[in-house]
Amino acid sequence: MMDYNLAWLSYRNIPWYEDRKFFQTIVTREKHVVIKTAVAELCRAAEEMFGMQPEITDRQERKDNFGKNRICLVMDAGISVAGGYRIEEYGGQISIFSGDASGILYGAYALVRRVQRELPLTGLKLQELPDMPLRMLNHWDNMDGSIERGYAGSSFFFKEGEILLNDRTRDYIRLAASVGINGVVINNVNVSGDATRLITDEYELSLKRMAAELEAYGITLYLSLNFAAPIELGDLDTADPEAEEVQSWWKEKMARLFQRIPNLGGFLVKADSEGRPGPFTYGRTHAQGANMLADMIKPYGGLIIWRCFVYNCTQDWRDKKTDRARSAYDNFMPLDGQFAENVILQIKNGPMDFQVREPVSPLFGSLEKTNQILEVQIAQEYTGQQKHVCYLIPMFKEILDFHTYCRKTKDKVSDIVSGRTFLQTECGMAAVANTGSDRNWTGHDLAAANWFGFGRLAFSASLTAEEIAEEWCECTFGPDRETTAAVTRILMMSWPAYEKYTSVLGIGWMVNPGNHYGPNVDGYEYDRWGTYHRADHRGIGVERGRAGTGYTSTYLEPNAAMYENIASCPEELLLFFHYIPYDYKMKSGKTLIQHIYDTHFEGVEDVEKMIGIWEGIRGKIPEEIFRRVKERLNHQREHAEEWRDQVNTYFYRKSFIADEKGRKIY
Amino acid sequence: MMDYNLAWLSYRNIPWYEDRKFFQTIVTREKHVVIKTAVAELCRAAEEMFGMQPEITDRQERKDNFGKNRICLVMDAGISVAGGYRIEEYGGQISIFSGDASGILYGAYALVRRVQRELPLTGLKLQELPDMPLRMLNHWDNMDGSIERGYAGSSFFFKEGEILLNDRTRDYIRLAASVGINGVVINNVNVSGDATRLITDEYELSLKRMAAELEAYGITLYLSLNFAAPIELGDLDTADPEAEEVQSWWKEKMARLFQRIPNLGGFLVKADSEGRPGPFTYGRTHAQGANMLADMIKPYGGLIIWRCFVYNCTQDWRDKKTDRARSAYDNFMPLDGQFAENVILQIKNGPMDFQVREPVSPLFGSLEKTNQILEVQIAQEYTGQQKHVCYLIPMFKEILDFHTYCRKTKDKVSDIVSGRTFLQTECGMAAVANTGSDRNWTGHDLAAANWFGFGRLAFSASLTAEEIAEEWCECTFGPDRETTAAVTRILMMSWPAYEKYTSVLGIGWMVNPGNHYGPNVDGYEYDRWGTYHRADHRGIGVERGRAGTGYTSTYLEPNAAMYENIASCPEELLLFFHYIPYDYKMKSGKTLIQHIYDTHFEGVEDVEKMIGIWEGIRGKIPEEIFRRVKERLNHQREHAEEWRDQVNTYFYRKSFIADEKGRKIY
Repeated sequence: MMDYNLAWLSYRNIPWYEDRKFFQTIVTREKHVVIKTAVAELCRAAEEMFGMQPEITDRQERKDNFGKNRICLVMDAGISVAGGYRIEEYGGQISIFSGDASGILYGAYALVRRVQRELPLTGLKLQELPDMPLRMLNHWDNMDGSIERGYAGSSFFFKEGEILLNDRTRDYIRLAASVGINGVVINNVNVSGDATRLITDEYELSLKRMAAELEAYGITLYLSLNFAAPIELGDLDTADPEAEEVQSWWKEKMARLFQRIPNLGGFLVKADSEGRPGPFTYGRTHAQGANMLADMIKPYGGLIIWRCFVYNCTQDWRDKKTDRARSAYDNFMPLDGQFAENVILQIKNGPMDFQVREPVSPLFGSLEKTNQILEVQIAQEYTGQQKHVCYLIPMFKEILDFHTYCRKTKDKVSDIVSGRTFLQTECGMAAVANTGSDRNWTGHDLAAANWFGFGRLAFSASLTAEEIAEEWCECTFGPDRETTAAVTRILMMSWPAYEKYTSVLGIGWMVNPGNHYGPNVDGYEYDRWGTYHRADHRGIGVERGRAGTGYTSTYLEPNAAMYENIASCPEELLLFFHYIPYDYKMKSGKTLIQHIYDTHFEGVEDVEKMIGIWEGIRGKIPEEIFRRVKERLNHQREHAEEWRDQVNTYFYRKSFIADEKGRKIY
Repeated sequence: MMDYNLAWLSYRNIPWYEDRKFFQTIVTREKHVVIKTAVAELCRAAEEMFGMQPEITDRQERKDNFGKNRICLVMDAGISVAGGYRIEEYGGQISIFSGDASGILYGAYALVRRVQRELPLTGLKLQELPDMPLRMLNHWDNMDGSIERGYAGSSFFFKEGEILLNDRTRDYIRLAASVGINGVVINNVNVSGDATRLITDEYELSLKRMAAELEAYGITLYLSLNFAAPIELGDLDTADPEAEEVQSWWKEKMARLFQRIPNLGGFLVKADSEGRPGPFTYGRTHAQGANMLADMIKPYGGLIIWRCFVYNCTQDWRDKKTDRARSAYDNFMPLDGQFAENVILQIKNGPMDFQVREPVSPLFGSLEKTNQILEVQIAQEYTGQQKHVCYLIPMFKEILDFHTYCRKTKDKVSDIVSGRTFLQTECGMAAVANTGSDRNWTGHDLAAANWFGFGRLAFSASLTAEEIAEEWCECTFGPDRETTAAVTRILMMSWPAYEKYTSVLGIGWMVNPGNHYGPNVDGYEYDRWGTYHRADHRGIGVERGRAGTGYTSTYLEPNAAMYENIASCPEELLLFFHYIPYDYKMKSGKTLIQHIYDTHFEGVEDVEKMIGIWEGIRGKIPEEIFRRVKERLNHQREHAEEWRDQVNTYFYRKSFIADEKGRKIY
């Protein structure tokens, strides 16, 4: 008995759909396992949507119905971008062309999406070439079944120290593959306990089976690695990457692993970060640490994905010179060019940690000789923890569209992480996943749009956030125009609303320490994490200009000057870059403090609007989902009010400047 | 191998002590088990201090050495207060008289204390009659071995669901008895899981043995009770105290328990508090709930000790009318006179929760027809968690000396809880214990003074805090005058110092939520616990006068008027009772804000002084203890600086009023 739904792959029965006729026959001569998967997925869709069992054949021509009402899967070396595909309908035959098997699978899913949306197939011409070579999900799942920053139940990868592989895992793989994901890291970046032993014989068989299941869907398996494994597992007394015994320990371990587990792609490493061990312990650089591991797995085509989330997490709040925002840049810029070619740096989108608004990491555009992955977080750690609706694709779009001005024609973040700017191949995007064992996979039903959307965006970065939202919505709920409009409107309102009623103009944080949920304006203000707002009676903000921490100068010009100058600094990031008095006049003509009050009132009103919109589509979507979302929206309203009141009261108490509109501030 | 010391019962070898001669013979005709304990304790002291083995005899007269050099333990009905004793030396014979066996034991310990302090016994005349009939320790120990709010290691009563009874337990009992404790509750007031089953057959044998060990030292065993036990254990679907099946369930359970466990004194109950079940659930009053249980155990002389810690813990910070300080009063005053005679209300010293400074609970003096226990906390939950030295006896003295003005001649809190005011017998003091499995029992070596001191104070409320400190110090470290002066000075400085560098003028809280350690000025400000300071740009404090929550009127006159009027309100409680502007002139002539700054700087200076004093006695006390304390003092200094800086910065940022002395405020 399946205790979960299939999200956007929950096919509705639509026997009236005219173009179902193409599904009578599926033709392919290819034997690749992934193409078999594509065939199986097309059959499943035909069965569930039209009750049809397609005939499967390898004969291009048939007497009775020459070239009609069929779908042909055809390898075509002309499509040279891995995973790219072209779909064409001509003369009653749909052909899916690709240069590789994965592309055929992606084409099949794309075709099914059109059917789900009841769009015509006749006359179809569609080509998509993936923007990002690597499109990864990072699961922060622990082997005891818990998930770090997980908001949708427990892990479906692990339970009580064991690896799970069952229908749920397989359906996860289908969902991931259907939106173009081609790599997953199944265990938490914080590796300890049982997870350290994932690279030992103990888990070999389970990992091998997991890797095979993934492979059938064109997805490569990655693991997170414990840099101190030679000590913890190997009885060595060091993990120094330059020590010979350490190197030979890794060499042997890796040889065995890659030989036993085909389809192992490599490792994600969080080193020297938040208490994790790393090369610093031994006076080595990150390049030395990463390259040593990379060397060991190069013979097997393996990759080392090295996280740049390195900062001093024992800062003194009294110290106004040390700036956490600078850390990734200061740690990694000097190493540009020193990393092996099978090392990738995985860089968080912003310099802090997945806040609702951050500037783009200054490493993008500055790092020229290093493979890069852009790391985003669809697990809504700081964006409402999947209790609030917060559609993050618009944020990711802004990040991808950011001009780094790195003196190349293709200078946007999307160009860099696609490999276009510096002509790299080991690049892409990774998202910290938002999934778990909840019935609906993501806790909040609308949070599935972030999972779907992340995959779609990494594949086709030129899609707009609205297009993705509509696509997700129609695949999930069917192509009812009113439903699509309503849900898309809620999604598109949600990130700006969340930003309005929570944190102010890029300052971030202001959350309860530890769980990171709910308002606590001073929660991190006197703490050791480098996350301050510096609010006092006169104003608020962190001075990161030349007069302050100098962080602005880590950007290339003209960005550096734009951020340095208060007048040109984008207002949504004003307090991230500068300390600003409450009576500062914003471009709207409002004072800063009035802007704070207004946005917080507006944010709550936006949630009320979202609730109204949602209520308007009752009856148009399954009642179970309607109610579940409604319940969360009600919580969101209440919680947004708490945010509004705490933040407004905090600033009123500090500034003693009254709300011009005389609204209730407690 | 003993992995702990014996605190103030660690006898030093003092063969030079002249009056050791009295220990040649111990004479008694009494067979009571507690008197046997007294004899054994005197022998152990003689052995360890002088290497003597006293002769034990029941013959009052001996030929060879008529009436000389001996200690006689004599029952004397003339001493009518239970536990009271008189010690007299006459003609070379020391006699310890008491009306009961426990009194003899207390006398023996008192005699030993004099020996430890090397005071002469010749000519000794000493009488002590206990002030409080009940002198209890409440252990918040869980059956998994953890201790709620425990700061000295794990439990020595429980481990992995089992009851421990070993040398350590026995030494704990000796330490407790030596300072006059006559009742202990061994399990946490929050009763769940295994602890609910403590009243079942499962633990009968262990509890029986534990009770017997305690009984030998004159201590009665109490347990904490789960009000919902009939549901959790008895398969009933209600715990309604008026339901017949509930009553008969309890009746049977209690009959069995009291028959099987002699020396079971009764139960401590936390009901309808912080999520615990209670009579409110069934629309019954606390009196109905308590009386039902009391009825069931009355045949066995059992007591129900019912905690008054009942308040709304889901308050809205925006609500300025609801006042947690009023809750115990509002909940229990209307019930005065309704409680059975074997019910005791256990009332926390203040209306909030063991803050460094609170007014005395207004229930004292107002409740006239109800047995009362004063509950204090020597577990330093809010007073430095046994990492900071904070000697609490001066605070308890202030509480006991508080005049309630209840229109009786003996109107102090000490009179009420001793039973003198309202002529009650089931009264006394209880302390939440500060012990655990640490080598030194209390984490901080100097925290043992609170355990010792609590017992001594409950026994003899007229002792001064200095006297108790000196007595503890000399028993622990020997009678070196310089050591005693130094340690006593540190102890006497410690509570005022802690108050200075932490919370301000009675406002309390300002700690990190959850663990309650370390500064967090707004930590509880926007929370649900009813614990606010209401600081804004102009001032700080909770208005609890008639214009505010009306809490002042819960006191009897003239206290009510004293608190109501800002001019007469004791300054140390000013912000507890009133909202006061920062520029308010204190009696010292300083403004309120300057007072805040000054006390926070002073508090840190006091810690530095304490460190200096401690360093002055290096070599005079065991090096292990010296170092352990020194380490904690160093942490205390650093932590006090953190308190100082966070609090001062917070108020500077809010008020923008500079420190007059121009000191560094971050």
